[in-house]
Amino acid sequence: MTADVTVSLDVMGGDEGANLVIPGAAKALTRRPELRFRLFGDRAVVEPMLAEQPALREASEFVHCDIAVRMDDKPSQALRRGRRNSSMWLSIDAVKRGDADFAVSAGNTGALMAMAKLCLKTTARIDRPAIAALWPTIRGESVVLDVGATIGADAQQLFDFAVMGGAMARALFDLDRPTIGLLNIGVEEVKGLEPVREAGQRLKDANLPNIAYAGFVEGDDLGNGTVDVVVTEGFSGNIALKTAEGTARQIATYLRNAMGRTLMARIGYFLAREAFDRLRDKMDPRRGNGGVFLGLNGIVIKSHGGTDAEGFATAVELGYSMVRNRLLEKINNDLTEYDQPHTQTLTDSVAPAGAA
Amino acid sequence: MTADVTVSLDVMGGDEGANLVIPGAAKALTRRPELRFRLFGDRAVVEPMLAEQPALREASEFVHCDIAVRMDDKPSQALRRGRRNSSMWLSIDAVKRGDADFAVSAGNTGALMAMAKLCLKTTARIDRPAIAALWPTIRGESVVLDVGATIGADAQQLFDFAVMGGAMARALFDLDRPTIGLLNIGVEEVKGLEPVREAGQRLKDANLPNIAYAGFVEGDDLGNGTVDVVVTEGFSGNIALKTAEGTARQIATYLRNAMGRTLMARIGYFLAREAFDRLRDKMDPRRGNGGVFLGLNGIVIKSHGGTDAEGFATAVELGYSMVRNRLLEKINNDLTEYDQPHTQTLTDSVAPAGAA
Repeated sequence: MTADVTVSLDVMGGDEGANLVIPGAAKALTRRPELRFRLFGDRAVVEPMLAEQPALREASEFVHCDIAVRMDDKPSQALRRGRRNSSMWLSIDAVKRGDADFAVSAGNTGALMAMAKLCLKTTARIDRPAIAALWPTIRGESVVLDVGATIGADAQQLFDFAVMGGAMARALFDLDRPTIGLLNIGVEEVKGLEPVREAGQRLKDANLPNIAYAGFVEGDDLGNGTVDVVVTEGFSGNIALKTAEGTARQIATYLRNAMGRTLMARIGYFLAREAFDRLRDKMDPRRGNGGVFLGLNGIVIKSHGGTDAEGFATAVELGYSMVRNRLLEKINNDLTEYDQPHTQTLTDSVAPAGAA
Repeated sequence: MTADVTVSLDVMGGDEGANLVIPGAAKALTRRPELRFRLFGDRAVVEPMLAEQPALREASEFVHCDIAVRMDDKPSQALRRGRRNSSMWLSIDAVKRGDADFAVSAGNTGALMAMAKLCLKTTARIDRPAIAALWPTIRGESVVLDVGATIGADAQQLFDFAVMGGAMARALFDLDRPTIGLLNIGVEEVKGLEPVREAGQRLKDANLPNIAYAGFVEGDDLGNGTVDVVVTEGFSGNIALKTAEGTARQIATYLRNAMGRTLMARIGYFLAREAFDRLRDKMDPRRGNGGVFLGLNGIVIKSHGGTDAEGFATAVELGYSMVRNRLLEKINNDLTEYDQPHTQTLTDSVAPAGAA
C-alpha cells in the first residue's frame, strides 16, 4: 500500500448510476485528498460529468465499459451478461489485479456478491462470505453481520463471522478486544437455535485473544450498543436491519406529523430546530451507508442503491478506513490463528431445533 | 357467552406480580364495566390490595394458590412445580372449564405457552401454536406472528399462521379480507427460505376467501403497515419485534438528549409539548401490549412482564375484543374450511436453503 489509497468504482451501479457515484466520489475526495480513483462506466455518461469535476478527473483513471448490471438482474443473469466486461465486474477485478485497494458499487447486492466471490475468491477456510453493516447505537456504533449475504449458518460459520466481525471492529473502532454477542431470542443458554448455542459454546471455549465473547444478545441490544459486534445469520440479520430502518422512518413520520399540527408546535419546532437537525443527523441512514463484504481476498463495499452523494461518499470513506487499518491482514491473521483442529464435528445442521 | 365477559388473571405473574395486575385489572374495569374477573394468587398479597379497589372486588372471584411460576423458571421446571396448582396454571384452567372467556398472565412466556398447550391443547390441525403481536404502523396497526412461540416453521405451519393471523385481523380490525404478507429478505420470488417460498405458492394457489395474499414483505414493511398481517417463524419474528422496540427506545433517547441541550431547544420543547405528548403516545409500548397465543382451544394473552397498570389493562382489553368478536370461532372455521387435501407433501424441511 502506498500513501495513496485507490478505490475502484462501479459508476453504473445504483438507482442513479453516475449521477450518484460521480458527485459521491468528488465529495469523498474533498475529505480524503489522498484517494485515487479507477472509474468503470459508460464514456458517454461519465466524461461530461467528469468535465465538471476537475479535481476528481485529476485523481481518476477512467475505463469505458459497455455493460452495466441491472438492479433487477438475478445473480446468474448478471454473471452471464456481465462477467469480465461489466462495470461491476471490472471494478472488482481491479482489486484482484492490485490496481485498486478496494471497490465500491451501489449495484444490486446479489450480483455484486456473486461476482465478488467468483472474482476474488473466499479467504482461508471461509466458504460463505458475510455482509457486515455499521449499526448506529446509543453508545456509538456496532458491527452487525451477516445482514443478508447467505441464509442460515452453522456453528463454525457463526464462529468465523465473530472472528471477522471482531477484526472489522478492531480496524474501525480502535479497540483491542471488542465484545461480541450472538443474536438470539432469549439470553438463557437453553434458548434459541442449535447452531447459535453451539457457536456460543465454541466461542466461550476458545477464549480468543482478540475478541471478548459476551454471550447471547436480543434484538433490542442492537440499538442499545450492548456489544461491539453482533453476529447472526443472513435471514434474521437482514430482517433486523430493515426493521430498524423502517422503525426509524416510521418515528420520523410521527414526529413530522406531530410538529406540523398546531401553530404552537410549529413555533416550538422552529426554536428547537438545531436540536431537530442534530436528531436528523443521528437518524440519517446515510451515516451508516456501506455493507462490507467479509471473507473475500479483497475489500468490496456495497453502497445503498438509493442513497445520495453524501451516502456514497460515506461508503467510500468506510473502505478507505479499512484499507488504512489493514482489515484483510487482521482477518487473515485471526482466521489462521483460530484455525485449530476442531474437536467438535462440523455436522451442525442449520435446521432450527424445535423449542416449545 | 353472556353479556358479561370473564377474564381469569394470573395475579402472581410479571416482575411486579399483584402490584401490576390488580391496578391493571381495576383500570380495565373502569373502561369495560361488563368485565368480570377470576383472580388467582396469594391471599396474603391480593386481599389487602382488593380491599382498596372496591369496584374490582365486587366484579371478582378470588382463588388462593400457593405456587407462583417464577420469571426465570424453564418451562419444564414450571410444569414440574406448578402444574395444577400454580396461579398461572389455574388461570388457564379456568378457560378450559368454561369459568372464564380468556386468560391473561404477565408471567414468563415459555412457561405460559407450555402450560397453555398442555391444558387447553391445540386446535384443529395445529401442532405448534404461535404468538401474535399487534404492531403499530404508520397506517394504524398490523398483526405480526409468530413473535417467538417456536423456532422455525415449515410451509404448512406458515400457511396456518396466515389463516390464524387473518382471523385475528378480521376480529380486531373490522376487515372482510385482510392482506397478508410473508416476511422475507427480498421481494423477488427467487429469494429467501424454501418454506417461505413454498408457503407463498400455497397461499397464492389457495386464493382464500377470507385473506388476500399480497406476496413477500421485508423488515421495513412492518412499520410501514404495507399489509394487515405479517407472517414469519418465531426466531426472526422475535428478533424483528425486539429490534423495533430497541430502535424506538434509541430514537427516544436521541430526542430527549437533543431537546435538553440548549435553552432554545428547551423553550421549543415546552411550546411543542402537546406534539411531543402525541408522539410519546404513538410510540408508547404499552399501546401494543399483549401477545396473543393462537392455535389453542382457548384465548390466552401474554402481557409484558415489565409493563405498568396501563399496559396490563391494554392486554385485558385486547382479550375482551377478541372474545366479543369471536376470534376462536373464526379461526376454527377458517382452519377447517382450508383443510383441503394437500397435493403437496408436507416434508418441507425447516433447513434454510443456501442462497448466494
